[in-house]
Amino acid sequence: MANRRRGKNYFKRAEGTPPPVTAEIKRHVHFNEVDLLGIVWHGRYPVYFEEGSEQLGRRCGLSYKDFYESGLRAPIVQLHVDYFQPLRLAEEFTIRTVLVWDEGSKLNTEYYLLKNDGSIATSGFTVQLLTDAGTGEVCIISPPLLERCRTRWKSGEFHIKNR
Amino acid sequence: MANRRRGKNYFKRAEGTPPPVTAEIKRHVHFNEVDLLGIVWHGRYPVYFEEGSEQLGRRCGLSYKDFYESGLRAPIVQLHVDYFQPLRLAEEFTIRTVLVWDEGSKLNTEYYLLKNDGSIATSGFTVQLLTDAGTGEVCIISPPLLERCRTRWKSGEFHIKNR
Amino acid sequence: MANRRRGKNYFKRAEGTPPPVTAEIKRHVHFNEVDLLGIVWHGRYPVYFEEGSEQLGRRCGLSYKDFYESGLRAPIVQLHVDYFQPLRLAEEFTIRTVLVWDEGSKLNTEYYLLKNDGSIATSGFTVQLLTDAGTGEVCIISPPLLERCRTRWKSGEFHIKNR
Amino acid sequence: MANRRRGKNYFKRAEGTPPPVTAEIKRHVHFNEVDLLGIVWHGRYPVYFEEGSEQLGRRCGLSYKDFYESGLRAPIVQLHVDYFQPLRLAEEFTIRTVLVWDEGSKLNTEYYLLKNDGSIATSGFTVQLLTDAGTGEVCIISPPLLERCRTRWKSGEFHIKNR
Repeated sequence: MANRRRGKNYFKRAEGTPPPVTAEIKRHVHFNEVDLLGIVWHGRYPVYFEEGSEQLGRRCGLSYKDFYESGLRAPIVQLHVDYFQPLRLAEEFTIRTVLVWDEGSKLNTEYYLLKNDGSIATSGFTVQLLTDAGTGEVCIISPPLLERCRTRWKSGEFHIKNR
Repeated sequence: MANRRRGKNYFKRAEGTPPPVTAEIKRHVHFNEVDLLGIVWHGRYPVYFEEGSEQLGRRCGLSYKDFYESGLRAPIVQLHVDYFQPLRLAEEFTIRTVLVWDEGSKLNTEYYLLKNDGSIATSGFTVQLLTDAGTGEVCIISPPLLERCRTRWKSGEFHIKNR
Repeated sequence: MANRRRGKNYFKRAEGTPPPVTAEIKRHVHFNEVDLLGIVWHGRYPVYFEEGSEQLGRRCGLSYKDFYESGLRAPIVQLHVDYFQPLRLAEEFTIRTVLVWDEGSKLNTEYYLLKNDGSIATSGFTVQLLTDAGTGEVCIISPPLLERCRTRWKSGEFHIKNR
Repeated sequence: MANRRRGKNYFKRAEGTPPPVTAEIKRHVHFNEVDLLGIVWHGRYPVYFEEGSEQLGRRCGLSYKDFYESGLRAPIVQLHVDYFQPLRLAEEFTIRTVLVWDEGSKLNTEYYLLKNDGSIATSGFTVQLLTDAGTGEVCIISPPLLERCRTRWKSGEFHIKNR
């Protein structure tokens, strides 16, 4: 069983690699997202994670459309969520999405849902593998799409504005 | 990062403890559950897990109603999913839910989604903590509800019929 | 504003046409489907309607796969729901789906969600237009897929077993 | 069957009553909201309607919290959706929510989902009845919460800023 690590990172930051790319969204909890206890149902969090990851993807050239046009898919092969504090009806919170540098044909993304006092309500991660849309096989050589993203990442372009 | 273990167990079966309780549901993939690629969207699996866990809960006296009437809550504090093979539109599959014996005030549940050829499409687990509905604190002493369940579990009652 | 008609039909049964085709599913309300008040959130009902309509479609040769293989689509152009009584957490209910005979290139479907005492909790309808998958245009001449369905319908084949 | 009226109003604007209150949100279509055809699944629209209605409720003192604190509930008794054009993956659109003046103990709300070219993709309405949280009965006399809202509405306060 994975460790529950509040505020700790899920993926290692390898020495000498560019810092992670971070994106943030502010959001309210909608009525249809809470359960009988007035807190967000645990299975609704992948929706929040995806909102964060889509925002980050638009910025880094890693959106669904970008993959599609490059003949790639990026299926999620692993999802993990740790729940520390509930989010309540109408509560405002922040989705912080963090893409961590990795040399392989995959995307390692961490998610931190923050209450307005800065404390972590929920955290988690996803792992996506880059596959060829035609064969379905995992890309052995890192695809050009990912290489372009990495070049921009190293240049510091993604770190200038935070949203 | 947790290991990806296809067909391996997430929770240890301690020696000398009763075997896990298992429940199974057969199910089709609905149109609203698949994504643009015709496969179940990764964030829909907690719904499947919950269907399995509700069925198991009804059998073991661990339903939401049972917790409520005992002044207890059982929040999920951890969720994990490993995706091995996609489930496709209209595909029939089985949700196998496995409750693993644990001495503490918590519920360790494993989920295995099986294709009709018996292979594992997806697996995962949840951890629930038993808390007092009034104080919100984790139960230090195992509550009577859980003790009653364990007595029936040890007696073998849960293993007679498999559904 | 459409009339609220409890137990009345939404679509006219034209004289001399075959009686509607009916399908029924028994179902429990899942935890993730209820809201803060412990009743099914109003926006969850299209999921129930779709479960009913998929079951009926499998029986009548009108599944998504059937449309796809015939180069057709069947987009929903209208949805209506009337809420009379709430459905509660864990409650068992029946989804009754009723396909009403129509001469045009469309499907008129009514839905009745029944409590175990036989009373109507919710009713509603959808209208689907048959369109050409290539052009996106509505089929002017009734497509062969629909004609085959109508031949079987007139023969009484769909009325033999009710599930 | 209700008429399909593109761009027409669902509820009558009675002469001599204050103009409707309008709220707007800009939004992208998320990956988990589209179906196999890459368009928003028809049953996802109640989520969009609710986002609009929550925004409007916050402005007019008609949020869930406001109802709750006044011992009221506002169950939806009718939902209607007309689909004119699909919304596609990643498409930006506007949710325009329109609360129409009514003298009774109910809320009549219209929804218009607009593409960026200004055309209507989808429209619909909901009817909510104000009920007493204790008895569950519909309020015969208009409750103070609604009266306060109407006083502010007549004063023009809701029409100054449009968001």
